[in-house]
Amino acid sequence: MLSRIDHVGIACRNLEAKIAFYESAFGLAVASMEVNESQGVREAMLHVSDGPAGASYVQLLEPLGPDTPVGRFLERRGEGLHHVGYGVANITAALAAIGATGVRLIDERPRHGSMGASIAFLHPADVGGVLTELVQAADH
Amino acid sequence: MLSRIDHVGIACRNLEAKIAFYESAFGLAVASMEVNESQGVREAMLHVSDGPAGASYVQLLEPLGPDTPVGRFLERRGEGLHHVGYGVANITAALAAIGATGVRLIDERPRHGSMGASIAFLHPADVGGVLTELVQAADH
Repeated sequence: MLSRIDHVGIACRNLEAKIAFYESAFGLAVASMEVNESQGVREAMLHVSDGPAGASYVQLLEPLGPDTPVGRFLERRGEGLHHVGYGVANITAALAAIGATGVRLIDERPRHGSMGASIAFLHPADVGGVLTELVQAADH
Repeated sequence: MLSRIDHVGIACRNLEAKIAFYESAFGLAVASMEVNESQGVREAMLHVSDGPAGASYVQLLEPLGPDTPVGRFLERRGEGLHHVGYGVANITAALAAIGATGVRLIDERPRHGSMGASIAFLHPADVGGVLTELVQAADH
């Protein structure tokens, strides 16, 4: 059902500084930058690789304010790994199948994610403490 | 320099229970299980995808005891995302290049990782709070 690791989501306090770090230390390049008001973040997707089922990215997330999910995460835990996103071919089918196993869905229906993708989050309490995202890429 | 997301490392309290969950909820299958005494873990690699530069996995980690890195992580933060591992073609060259940018290396020289890989960890304080691992797969 999961076609790839689409991205790792990393919470940071200063998006531009963190982009510069990933560029210089690891040679990654920015594929996309956008503001997602509904998720309360400014974000950058840094391209890592391409594969048969789509690309993989490092997603850097800077909160739009302290009273946002990523803002509260930074306050509680500091900068670091925030979530993992897995690629799926059909997000509606994947949500139905995963929901049927008893995992609670934060998003019952897909919503707008990075780079035009359809995304949905699963409840971390039902996935061993891991905030888990499903991603159907725009071109898949 | 980074060829792919090799794996996300997830800390858990009960390896068999978590494997069963990832199998049933996400349809993943175990590619390898081993004990790594030097890292103080029992671990399973669950195959997610194959790509031109190698495969990607979910790595589930159960500590061998409370006084291990993963044991202390569980005590401090509970179950959840522990680290991310990126594939590299030549880990010795990658360590030298990354170290030259000022990132401190937990492992100055590669050591034994999952499935015969050569691996090395970078200091999370120098990577924005993310425990970051480099992985040169055994067959690359």
